[in-house]
Amino acid sequence: MTEFSTTNLTTIIDLLGTLAFAISGLRWASRKEFDLFGAYVIGFITAIGGGTTRDLLLGVTPFWMEDPKYAIVTGVALIAVLIFKRRIIKLDKTLFIFDTVGLGLFTVSGIDKALELGFPIWICIIIGAVSGSVGGVIRDIIINEVPLLFRKEVYALASVAGGIVYFVCYQFSGFHPYHEIFAVITVILVRRLSVKYHFHLPTLKSFDN
Amino acid sequence: MTEFSTTNLTTIIDLLGTLAFAISGLRWASRKEFDLFGAYVIGFITAIGGGTTRDLLLGVTPFWMEDPKYAIVTGVALIAVLIFKRRIIKLDKTLFIFDTVGLGLFTVSGIDKALELGFPIWICIIIGAVSGSVGGVIRDIIINEVPLLFRKEVYALASVAGGIVYFVCYQFSGFHPYHEIFAVITVILVRRLSVKYHFHLPTLKSFDN
Amino acid sequence: MTEFSTTNLTTIIDLLGTLAFAISGLRWASRKEFDLFGAYVIGFITAIGGGTTRDLLLGVTPFWMEDPKYAIVTGVALIAVLIFKRRIIKLDKTLFIFDTVGLGLFTVSGIDKALELGFPIWICIIIGAVSGSVGGVIRDIIINEVPLLFRKEVYALASVAGGIVYFVCYQFSGFHPYHEIFAVITVILVRRLSVKYHFHLPTLKSFDN
Repeated sequence: MTEFSTTNLTTIIDLLGTLAFAISGLRWASRKEFDLFGAYVIGFITAIGGGTTRDLLLGVTPFWMEDPKYAIVTGVALIAVLIFKRRIIKLDKTLFIFDTVGLGLFTVSGIDKALELGFPIWICIIIGAVSGSVGGVIRDIIINEVPLLFRKEVYALASVAGGIVYFVCYQFSGFHPYHEIFAVITVILVRRLSVKYHFHLPTLKSFDN
Repeated sequence: MTEFSTTNLTTIIDLLGTLAFAISGLRWASRKEFDLFGAYVIGFITAIGGGTTRDLLLGVTPFWMEDPKYAIVTGVALIAVLIFKRRIIKLDKTLFIFDTVGLGLFTVSGIDKALELGFPIWICIIIGAVSGSVGGVIRDIIINEVPLLFRKEVYALASVAGGIVYFVCYQFSGFHPYHEIFAVITVILVRRLSVKYHFHLPTLKSFDN
Repeated sequence: MTEFSTTNLTTIIDLLGTLAFAISGLRWASRKEFDLFGAYVIGFITAIGGGTTRDLLLGVTPFWMEDPKYAIVTGVALIAVLIFKRRIIKLDKTLFIFDTVGLGLFTVSGIDKALELGFPIWICIIIGAVSGSVGGVIRDIIINEVPLLFRKEVYALASVAGGIVYFVCYQFSGFHPYHEIFAVITVILVRRLSVKYHFHLPTLKSFDN
């Protein structure tokens, strides 16, 4: 039963993450004036880029090639963006929210997959961060910006924090679906609070000074 | 017999596509003043980038690692560019033609390979578009431009149109080498006509207005 | 015994190369004012990007996922950079030296791995150059610069030269650890001398003149 509900939870987490990241990609496509097809593609790449990199590293077939759900959800995101445009604008922090939720959801589904394949904890945490943040990095590279990940904001670090919470729970009480939710909440909270209180790590000052 | 001629046709398509894309990469290398070695590398990456991404997604050894033909054809392209420079300049739309022909040829060889491995039709169409356009995307990322694919021009969409034609033919009369030719012609026509008549998809207008 | 010392030598070469490339990545992170986490990530990507691309092309699990040494060495590099900052500045050509040594070391470990998997010599030489230079290319793409590789400097070509020396030795006297050292020295010398005497290949002049 636990396995059953976990599978369901993982699927739901994956689809919500896809929706969130696709919308974040579409919003950038809108800013950069991509056409509808280019917008769909960048939404799709943002949504699946992290998971695809994860799957290539893990040596398994990319998840979106085994299930049309992810391509369909990206289509739904595009339609939603076209219909609810104004409402999405009114939510001032939409982009931020979607990006952060997607980061949390994909971190956890990445950890789940690496764990299932028997990788050690430190690899699972890295794979979680890769799943959560590489889609956004590829998006930023394509739109020709220095990836958000490396600029002064807590991003992949939030993902790592979520991974650590996941495994601390895991150590204490074995696997339990609630851990996934704790980990997602950790990622969202760490990123949200760090932005709210302008917390960021110090920069590596130039050697040249 | 059909199988024999198909194998031959696929090889010829692949080599012509390689030549076309290598020349398109070399032309960009020339504009950006890369040296001869850098030019060869960017020509090679443009030519094999799409097929390599296809093969990594499909989980097979990249095609150019099993056959030196592709590396040699890129060398031939470099020599041809050095020798016939003036004549290639005189053909005003060379870059466009080569890029479009390469797109058509690689789309079809990508579909063929995914189909052979038993993937469903929608994946084959995506893989065809990946094979046809990712080489150019990697080229554009390396030369530090926003990829052509996402700017206002029908590009990967032409590839998708070719893929659809391929499978419509396939549905009606099973596999036949002529379908590949129909599909290549579709890709070239869709791109050519869309440029000629300035057709492009609407952009996803900014949410911020 | 030869096998034993070779394994050791390969490990040492790999770790030194990792250290060298991580420091080169960290130096760029410092220039671009990345935060400490972003700096670690770019150092790690610079260090493992070439080897990871090699392993994906070869169809094996990326080396750093089977051994935490590489992630740890990158951490050591970060700490070293933070502690010895001033001394590293005083060595005027640090960045160049580290980049060149890393190129040489990774070229050889890449050739070793491809050879072990039974690939033909020309693939081994390409894989060596990929191992040595793709980490730097990914680094340059992320920091949004046209990769060093394609600009007017002998870089991946030095790697190819090292690969050729490796196989010339191999032809004459079979496998011997000294060949690896000869090849590394070749890479370093070719790059060093080409910079010292301002040697570079001619550029592919624009077709548009």
